[in-house]
Amino acid sequence: MNRKMVFYTIGRILLLEGALLALPLAVSVYYWDGGQLPLLLTIALSLGLGLLFIRLFRPDSQVIYAREGFLITGLTWVIVSALGALPFVLSGEIPSYVDAFFETVSGFTTTGASILTNVESMSRSMLFWRSFTHWIGGMGVLVLMVAVMPNLSGRTIHILRAEMPGPTMGKLSPKLADTAKLLYLIYIALTLLELFLLFAGGMPLYDSAVHTFGTAGTGGFGIKADSVAGYSPYLQWVIAVFMMLFGLNFNIFFLLLMKRFRAAFQSEELWAYVGIVFGSTALICWNIRPLFSSFSESLRQAFFQVTTISSTTGYSTADFNTWPTLSRMILVLLMFIGACAGSTAGGLKVSRLVLLLKNYRQVVRHLLHPRAVTATRFEGKPVDSSTLTSVNNYFALYIGLFVGFWFLVSFQPGYDGVSNFTAVAACYNNIGPGLNLVGPAANYAGYAPFFKVLLSFAMLFGRLELYPMLISLSPGVWMKK
Amino acid sequence: MNRKMVFYTIGRILLLEGALLALPLAVSVYYWDGGQLPLLLTIALSLGLGLLFIRLFRPDSQVIYAREGFLITGLTWVIVSALGALPFVLSGEIPSYVDAFFETVSGFTTTGASILTNVESMSRSMLFWRSFTHWIGGMGVLVLMVAVMPNLSGRTIHILRAEMPGPTMGKLSPKLADTAKLLYLIYIALTLLELFLLFAGGMPLYDSAVHTFGTAGTGGFGIKADSVAGYSPYLQWVIAVFMMLFGLNFNIFFLLLMKRFRAAFQSEELWAYVGIVFGSTALICWNIRPLFSSFSESLRQAFFQVTTISSTTGYSTADFNTWPTLSRMILVLLMFIGACAGSTAGGLKVSRLVLLLKNYRQVVRHLLHPRAVTATRFEGKPVDSSTLTSVNNYFALYIGLFVGFWFLVSFQPGYDGVSNFTAVAACYNNIGPGLNLVGPAANYAGYAPFFKVLLSFAMLFGRLELYPMLISLSPGVWMKK
Repeated sequence: MNRKMVFYTIGRILLLEGALLALPLAVSVYYWDGGQLPLLLTIALSLGLGLLFIRLFRPDSQVIYAREGFLITGLTWVIVSALGALPFVLSGEIPSYVDAFFETVSGFTTTGASILTNVESMSRSMLFWRSFTHWIGGMGVLVLMVAVMPNLSGRTIHILRAEMPGPTMGKLSPKLADTAKLLYLIYIALTLLELFLLFAGGMPLYDSAVHTFGTAGTGGFGIKADSVAGYSPYLQWVIAVFMMLFGLNFNIFFLLLMKRFRAAFQSEELWAYVGIVFGSTALICWNIRPLFSSFSESLRQAFFQVTTISSTTGYSTADFNTWPTLSRMILVLLMFIGACAGSTAGGLKVSRLVLLLKNYRQVVRHLLHPRAVTATRFEGKPVDSSTLTSVNNYFALYIGLFVGFWFLVSFQPGYDGVSNFTAVAACYNNIGPGLNLVGPAANYAGYAPFFKVLLSFAMLFGRLELYPMLISLSPGVWMKK
Repeated sequence: MNRKMVFYTIGRILLLEGALLALPLAVSVYYWDGGQLPLLLTIALSLGLGLLFIRLFRPDSQVIYAREGFLITGLTWVIVSALGALPFVLSGEIPSYVDAFFETVSGFTTTGASILTNVESMSRSMLFWRSFTHWIGGMGVLVLMVAVMPNLSGRTIHILRAEMPGPTMGKLSPKLADTAKLLYLIYIALTLLELFLLFAGGMPLYDSAVHTFGTAGTGGFGIKADSVAGYSPYLQWVIAVFMMLFGLNFNIFFLLLMKRFRAAFQSEELWAYVGIVFGSTALICWNIRPLFSSFSESLRQAFFQVTTISSTTGYSTADFNTWPTLSRMILVLLMFIGACAGSTAGGLKVSRLVLLLKNYRQVVRHLLHPRAVTATRFEGKPVDSSTLTSVNNYFALYIGLFVGFWFLVSFQPGYDGVSNFTAVAACYNNIGPGLNLVGPAANYAGYAPFFKVLLSFAMLFGRLELYPMLISLSPGVWMKK
């Protein structure tokens, strides 16, 4: 294990975090809202710690393997969140450090679950930083590091692979730093487009920026008590459509940019995702029609709630907690499915679902015709058995860890089973709101500190797709041989 | 596909069912309670159909493969249930055929979910038949056929393997017919022992027989509105201990009989099962202590409810629906885990859980040390990768089908999510009672006919461990090449 390289890379990330904190600092200076000093202190600490790490852990060799990649990713996300929580505590706006840590992890992991009971009382700079963490965490802080500080040597693939969601990593360009840059360019372009459409639709610039961050990272932090229910139907449609877009595999946008339309529209994951979103919208729209006065409203409510959950964003325009059982059930299922691999969304990912279903067919076929050799194909390519095995392993681990978190959270007194189940589902899949006591009209403030930390770890496990956190918490990694 | 052999075997099973119906007929004659004619008619129909099948489908070759084994098993269970439902309808005690089918499937699959709103108004012979189906279904109707009609040729392994629960089949004897006989002998011995202990404890003989059938098959049909809550603590302890025993792998009893104590007590599955039962009992006992006046009562209530759920029986001595969230959550988890492979219980099975957990460890180890070769061992033997793959496949399919059933049942109007989730969990894992509207104090009468049929199929999928039903419902099996 190349430990020096692990901490050296974390040192670089801390420098990056210090730089990123300059943006909320600028907001704070502009509004002069009291966030300046807390932000400045955090920046100083980030830069100081970063320089210290880089100095202390100058690596003899930059060679790293998969396990170092997992460890770097797991530790980075914990440390970045632990530091990112400081402005909230130092400004006194979130007095408890555990609460601030929960809120920051929720931000970086693009979960959007909140412990704030009165979001409208927060200062502008703190709300800006809170939403900006969504934007940073969406595409990934390590991907950003590779994009802007490309002078790390060859093995960065292990870092990117550990941070980017999905069963396989799409390399858009033969050079990894170029892939990272391309991803961020697409991300920035889509972000600016949404910002413009919201601003043009009459949303104030500050609100537009915050909601664009929340949509782009599929996070879901808002600035109003009723999330985005108070904005006009036009603005809600824009947000809904962009939530769906940010749930797409970024390879699709890349192919479109390259004018390879055929390749883009042949993606099985794309059509499965579109089918899931439109199918669920149709079912829910039919199921909730008695609750709304017009078809167009129930369509908008259904589409918004489906895109917010399936993209794992978590904005809401309705308290779906009061919807019929079928609709609630579908939304809970969508929580687990999530959106496409290679997007900013959480959940199991549509591509894994497709591979699981293809594997089912394969298993039944094999029982019927034990000697026939049939190959599974996905995205036009044959899938080898090791990919199927690793998808199956991931699924078993994903369910197992979910059950483990659910079991532990059940020790919280005073919460019903549906609240606990959906709280864990919403954190683990990086969505935000669940049902009942953690529904869209409620928040996570009621959980005891231990359970807030536990749910924070559920978010980290989910965002990083289990292995980085699992490796970082394995005793085997930390013991000297 | 050797279709003739499939229907020929089903013909033999129908003869067997006709013979088994003689026992409730005798009860009916003894009590002269009006069940005589309905039972006689059903016996005549079973024998007639059985002879017809045997005549029509005399096979040219007795050779069968795995797919025929699955098909025989799947079809047998559906047909045996369809016929077994007739006495209830013909006697007018369950007027709706769908209801009677649900009740009979629930009996044979040892689920114990009921649509009866007033069980105490039923006649003695009908209640006897209802509970007797548990006893037959527990060890398996095809295993019984192999035990009593051993003149089927060599390939019966495919039938036994399809009907017997667990990831691998333990052959107690090199000859399959002997294995089947041994299993039934152990089964009968344990049955007689429980019958004696209940009768000696003051339970009337008829009640003792019915409850012994329900315990032995891990079914759970009772004859009182309050299940077994009205019986003495001694009787409840006897039933609880036997529920736990019938959840054990029958190999253990065989090893004990052979005086191979060391081999018996080295079973990893045994200790995992004991650990799960005692661990859950301790947690729930602590969690529900404020609800009961004495430690001994809360211990008995906790142990009874844990054994009833983990052995997937379904008797109850308390309405655990009113228990705290943690206890309810643990009981829901136990529903999915089930008991040991090679027992009469349902659920995922403890051995599969152990293998899944071992596979997790393996996956993490592989990430840390990609080149190290480490073997997984289970029950003292190395586990090859194809066993791990098939356990993973089974788990993915098990979760997938559960979600599918849950999704479809959610269309039932007027039921909340917890009721639907636990109704499917309780049927699919062959337990019986769930929570809320299907809790221990309620029943399944409120579901519309379509959903009753759906839940009946969930029970069949669960009891037969997915593949036999999946194969029987595959269009590929039924189409001519």
